[in-house]
Amino acid sequence: MTATATEAPAKIWANSGDSHFLEPDDLWSSNLPKRLADLVPRAEKDPDGLWETVHIDGQSFRRRLPNVAQQEFYDLSNRAPGAKDAKLRLADLDQEGVWAEVVFPSLGMWSSSFRTPEVLREALKVSNDWAIDAIMKVSPRLVPTAQVSTLLVEDAIAELQRAAGLGYRAVFLPTTPHPAQPDWNNKYWMPFWAAAQEANMVLAFHVGTDPVDLASGQAVGVTYRGPGGAVLNYTETTFSGQRAAMKLVTSGALDQHPNLKVLIAEGGASWVPFLADRMTEGYRQHSMAVRPKLSRAPAEILYEQVYASFQHDKSAIPTVMHHGYRNVMWGSDYPHMEGTFGHTQETLHELFDGVPDDVRHRITIGTFNELFPGVIGEPPAVGAPAPQSQA
Amino acid sequence: MTATATEAPAKIWANSGDSHFLEPDDLWSSNLPKRLADLVPRAEKDPDGLWETVHIDGQSFRRRLPNVAQQEFYDLSNRAPGAKDAKLRLADLDQEGVWAEVVFPSLGMWSSSFRTPEVLREALKVSNDWAIDAIMKVSPRLVPTAQVSTLLVEDAIAELQRAAGLGYRAVFLPTTPHPAQPDWNNKYWMPFWAAAQEANMVLAFHVGTDPVDLASGQAVGVTYRGPGGAVLNYTETTFSGQRAAMKLVTSGALDQHPNLKVLIAEGGASWVPFLADRMTEGYRQHSMAVRPKLSRAPAEILYEQVYASFQHDKSAIPTVMHHGYRNVMWGSDYPHMEGTFGHTQETLHELFDGVPDDVRHRITIGTFNELFPGVIGEPPAVGAPAPQSQA
Repeated sequence: MTATATEAPAKIWANSGDSHFLEPDDLWSSNLPKRLADLVPRAEKDPDGLWETVHIDGQSFRRRLPNVAQQEFYDLSNRAPGAKDAKLRLADLDQEGVWAEVVFPSLGMWSSSFRTPEVLREALKVSNDWAIDAIMKVSPRLVPTAQVSTLLVEDAIAELQRAAGLGYRAVFLPTTPHPAQPDWNNKYWMPFWAAAQEANMVLAFHVGTDPVDLASGQAVGVTYRGPGGAVLNYTETTFSGQRAAMKLVTSGALDQHPNLKVLIAEGGASWVPFLADRMTEGYRQHSMAVRPKLSRAPAEILYEQVYASFQHDKSAIPTVMHHGYRNVMWGSDYPHMEGTFGHTQETLHELFDGVPDDVRHRITIGTFNELFPGVIGEPPAVGAPAPQSQA
Repeated sequence: MTATATEAPAKIWANSGDSHFLEPDDLWSSNLPKRLADLVPRAEKDPDGLWETVHIDGQSFRRRLPNVAQQEFYDLSNRAPGAKDAKLRLADLDQEGVWAEVVFPSLGMWSSSFRTPEVLREALKVSNDWAIDAIMKVSPRLVPTAQVSTLLVEDAIAELQRAAGLGYRAVFLPTTPHPAQPDWNNKYWMPFWAAAQEANMVLAFHVGTDPVDLASGQAVGVTYRGPGGAVLNYTETTFSGQRAAMKLVTSGALDQHPNLKVLIAEGGASWVPFLADRMTEGYRQHSMAVRPKLSRAPAEILYEQVYASFQHDKSAIPTVMHHGYRNVMWGSDYPHMEGTFGHTQETLHELFDGVPDDVRHRITIGTFNELFPGVIGEPPAVGAPAPQSQA
């Protein structure tokens, strides 16, 4: 059925590889024993409303409170009714045409500021236990990511295994681990990759999550200042996702664990063929310096084991059709400003009108279902009404 | 004419957006007045052959001499007969099937370690004067890039204008300017962009040229260590080229100078549609924070004014055919290890056999000729013999 000028376009249903949930502010402080609760982040605002003192794990630092524009941006980023309520979220998903979604945490941005392994480990356990009732059990359409401490690999492995037992299918990882530990390409992490493959857990990296040293005045997402800064800072975040993927390829982590699957969320998808060629060139032309040698070509490993999600990028479609990279997944980035909340259907039609059905299905549905087999069935057909927000 | 199994494949001639020339070691010290010559880089090797002391512009630092493997890599990188001799180079180009090439300098890697504007300014003048006879006048097939100091914008402008008068068509720029000055997106550089447009000079950035603080022990091209380091370090260099392009787009530098053209050499080309989409998303979704507003869409500016060169990337061809990005240029990276010296024809056939003639012509010939109109005519037809190295 073709829509006429007076009909609304048929609804395109899509799974999302990237969405976010806002936990209660007091999640950790209300659920940890006092000894540990005293060490999780808390802020004391100055009476003048300009600065605050943040206390975290025995350290304290001062920082400016958001100005009016920054506060407005933050509020807009979390304006969706379902930002912090999974039941309300299902109505948002129905309205937008999102069938199922990977759900990332928000409190995790603090993880790199912890120093005491026990505090971080126990706080993330609280988060994982909480999300089962608050998100996972509300609907199979919501696929939350477990959180693990990257301050100690033993803690990461133990919590990954516990989370898998609780029903989690993916583990959220920052694009660079805790600054106390070596980078993802180091052998230190090899037992963790083995455990993730064994537990059948997807490694879900999200761009923009490199550790930030809040105590030294670094601000999340601010690399550039001055003209063009907003777009430069936004675009820069994609590189950290690309780096995570290439560290796992070049170090042999994915080569040695061929069933391990990686999601790089929110960083776009059309960088993959480019990065594959670049790594191929380096691997071959600098072969005398390359350690370890890989049993498969780096491009093959990247194409087979790394999945990538994008929101608005029209270049994602020719990437699937003409570059042979199939692991491309759409994502809403709900409820954030970079995402499609409020204009999801407009975006999906701009992206997919005129695109062959099999390509649209792969990007909107198939890739997600390949990454999370058996989690959720096919969505309503294109154009079908919303399914009464089934829980 | 189709090649049979016993014939060699027809020679494909290609212009190169990326090659390098090795200047004489004593170029600066032999051609500057003694007062300045004493301040250009010189190294004293320890008797044991393990360390050296490098003196530059009043500073001294110690560094390890290359080990056997590093020295071998360096020697291989400059093994081509024409690496430091333009007449011999023409024979190499004929053999490889390279018709014309952009020629980058090598000594410029030291520029970020100078502190005295006069020393750097006069050293680069020496380089520019030298390359006229040594490279430019040898053949119109060689298009050397002028060098300018980025330690002071006034010096950069004056030398850019002098070089244009001497016949230069492009100016080499590092992906980040001298650390004493603000980044390329800062207004400080706006008069330089105006001067470059006025002088009709292409801005030729080369990846891997971010300033390196040699005195603090930084090594060129080493960001990662450990497993995968060689490929990680190689791939990382492309990001600095992408950043230079996006700084010039987002700051308004290209928007305000619509005739200015930028070449990002050696960093690949298929990143451009990806970066265009990413910048579009940031520009629109973070619009409340975007300064300056641009008169054209960032993707349009990037597609029209930024040119990119690649060596082996097969993804470059669908980028032209299916992403609508036309400013893609092949490059040999002669004589370096990342390049095609010794296997240029094999690479060109792998890339272009079966590709429509107009696409092959655009990438191998047309893009270069659009960037440097009137510099050089069409090369010999595909399969034609080498042209007796005409000078």
